[in-house]
Amino acid sequence: MEFDLIARIRDRAATRDDVVLGIGDDAALLQVPADRQLVVAMDTLNAGVHFPPDTAAADIGWKALAVNLSDLAAMGAQPAWCTLSLSLPQADAAWLDGFLDGFLELAAKHGVALVGGDTTRGPLSVCVTAHGFVEPGRALRRDGACEGDDIWVTGTLGDAAAALAAMRAGAVSDRALRARLDRPTPRVEAGRALAGIASACIDVSDGLLADLGHVCAASGTGARVDVEALPASPALARFRPEQRWPWQATGGDDYELCFTAPAGRRDDVVQALADADGGVAAARIGLIEPGEGVCAIRPEGSVWRPASAGFRHF
Amino acid sequence: MEFDLIARIRDRAATRDDVVLGIGDDAALLQVPADRQLVVAMDTLNAGVHFPPDTAAADIGWKALAVNLSDLAAMGAQPAWCTLSLSLPQADAAWLDGFLDGFLELAAKHGVALVGGDTTRGPLSVCVTAHGFVEPGRALRRDGACEGDDIWVTGTLGDAAAALAAMRAGAVSDRALRARLDRPTPRVEAGRALAGIASACIDVSDGLLADLGHVCAASGTGARVDVEALPASPALARFRPEQRWPWQATGGDDYELCFTAPAGRRDDVVQALADADGGVAAARIGLIEPGEGVCAIRPEGSVWRPASAGFRHF
Repeated sequence: MEFDLIARIRDRAATRDDVVLGIGDDAALLQVPADRQLVVAMDTLNAGVHFPPDTAAADIGWKALAVNLSDLAAMGAQPAWCTLSLSLPQADAAWLDGFLDGFLELAAKHGVALVGGDTTRGPLSVCVTAHGFVEPGRALRRDGACEGDDIWVTGTLGDAAAALAAMRAGAVSDRALRARLDRPTPRVEAGRALAGIASACIDVSDGLLADLGHVCAASGTGARVDVEALPASPALARFRPEQRWPWQATGGDDYELCFTAPAGRRDDVVQALADADGGVAAARIGLIEPGEGVCAIRPEGSVWRPASAGFRHF
Repeated sequence: MEFDLIARIRDRAATRDDVVLGIGDDAALLQVPADRQLVVAMDTLNAGVHFPPDTAAADIGWKALAVNLSDLAAMGAQPAWCTLSLSLPQADAAWLDGFLDGFLELAAKHGVALVGGDTTRGPLSVCVTAHGFVEPGRALRRDGACEGDDIWVTGTLGDAAAALAAMRAGAVSDRALRARLDRPTPRVEAGRALAGIASACIDVSDGLLADLGHVCAASGTGARVDVEALPASPALARFRPEQRWPWQATGGDDYELCFTAPAGRRDDVVQALADADGGVAAARIGLIEPGEGVCAIRPEGSVWRPASAGFRHF
C-alpha cells in the first residue's frame, strides 16, 4: 500500500531541471549550483501539538512546508527542493489528496520540487526537509547582531496566537486570524532581499521575545523591544493593547522574520522589502543593546513582562 | 525544554570541514563539492512499526541512521551529513543519551556530521535525512537492469526476519539474529565499490523479492531467483531450508544490497567487493530475464511461492 501512496504523490509532484532523479528510487539525485552553498532545514508537525486536531488536510500540507520554507527564508536562502516523510494512521487517499493540495500549492508558489521521502504507518506526523541555495557569505545567521543595530519584524504579529486562544476558550476564531494559524506565509522573498543587508535574522515560530532571545544569545548582546511598536493586523488591532501584547510578543506560529540591521541601513531595508514580491511591510521594534536578554518596554518606559515566555516544545 | 535537548545533541555531534554552519541556527549551511551530485534519502522509524517496543534507545539511534545510510549505499553515494527530527513523548535525557550513543557511533564510522533537525513532543518517532555525494553518471539506480544480467546480493539474508519471528512467537531470539534486526550494517563501502560496475541496485528493506520487483518494474524486465542460492548466516543455516526461505526471500530489515551486473563483469564485482572495507561477500542468486515480475525457483526447478510478499507499510 505504501507504493500506491507514493505513486499518488509522484504523479502530482512537479520537477525542476536540477533534479537528476526524483521520487521513486532509493534516494534523490540533485545538482547544486557550483557557486552556491546548500541550506538545509528540517521540521516536523505532530497532530495536536503543532496544529489543532480539526485542521483541514490541505492546511496541514501547506503549513508543513511553510514552516520549513520559513527557516530557509530566515537564512536568506532561495528554496529549491524538499523531501516529505508522512506517518499516517491508515492509508487514506482522500486525506492524502487534500494534504497534497495544500503542500503542492505552496511548493508551486516558490518553485520547490518534492523529490523524495517516505510514507509509513504511525500516528499522524509530517516531517519535511527543505533545501535551498545561498551565495557564499550572504547567509543570514543568528549570530551577527551588533550593539546599536535596529530590530525589525516583517508583517504583523500575534494573529495565530489570538486564533489559538479563541479556539482554546471554545469560541469561533475570526477567519482572518485563523487563516494566519493555518496558512502562514513564509517570508521567502523578504529573506532573499535582506541577505547582504540584515546583520542577523530568525523566523518567529516560538514567539518574538523567545526567538529574539536566541539571536541575542548567539550574538552575545541584549535587546530592548518597544512593546507598543509590535505591528498588529487590522483583525488584531481590535483587541486592547494589554490583551494583544502577549499574543504579539510571545505567541508562536507567526512565521514573520525578526531581523537586525545597522541604523545606517534603514533606507536600504525599507527599499529592499518594498521591492520584494510586491512589497513586504516591516516595523522597527527596538534596539540591540549591550548585556544579555530581551527586555520589553511599555510606552511610558516601564518594563512589560509577559505571563508566558513563548511556545514550549516540551 | 527543546533547547536543552538540542544543546545536548549539539555538544556531542561531530562536524566536518564542509559544514559551514551546523546545529543551532534556522538551517544548516553546507558546501557540496563542485564535481559531485547531491544524494538525499529520508526515512522514518515509528515505535512498534519499525522496531519492537523493547528496543534499546542506542539500537533505535543506530538503526534510524543505518536505514538512511543504506539508501545512500544503494545509490553508490558517499555519506556526508544528516539531519534528525526526533519526536518524544517527554524530554528524557537518559533516553536521549542512549539514542545518541548508537546514532553517533554509526555516524562516526562513516564520517557523517549531524548538522540540524528538530526535537518535538509527540509519539516516539525518528525521522532522518541523509545527504551524500556521487560522481555524475555513476549513481546506482533501479532502472538499469538488462536482460541477461546476473542478480547478486551482499552478505546474508533473513536474520532480521528470523529474529522478529522468534519474538512474535514469544521465544527469545538468537543473539546473532537479533543483532541483525537491531543494528543492521549499511553497505556503504560495497555501494561505493559497485558504482560504475553494477547496472542497477536497491537495498533490501522490504524483502528481497519485493525489492527486486521494484528493480524489475523500473527496468522493464523480469527476474528469476534461485531460492537455494540465497545466502544464509551460520545462525540461520541451522533452520531447515523450507523454514528459512520465507525469511530470506520476503523478510524485511536485512539492509543488504541487491544489485545486477553484466555476466561479463563477474570478476570485477568480486574484486571490487573484496577490496571494499576489508571484504564484503556477495552471492549470485539469479538472472534478469525478459518479461515482468520476479519468479523464485526451487532446486528441482519448480516455482517456489512465499506465503507473504514482503513488508507492507500499511
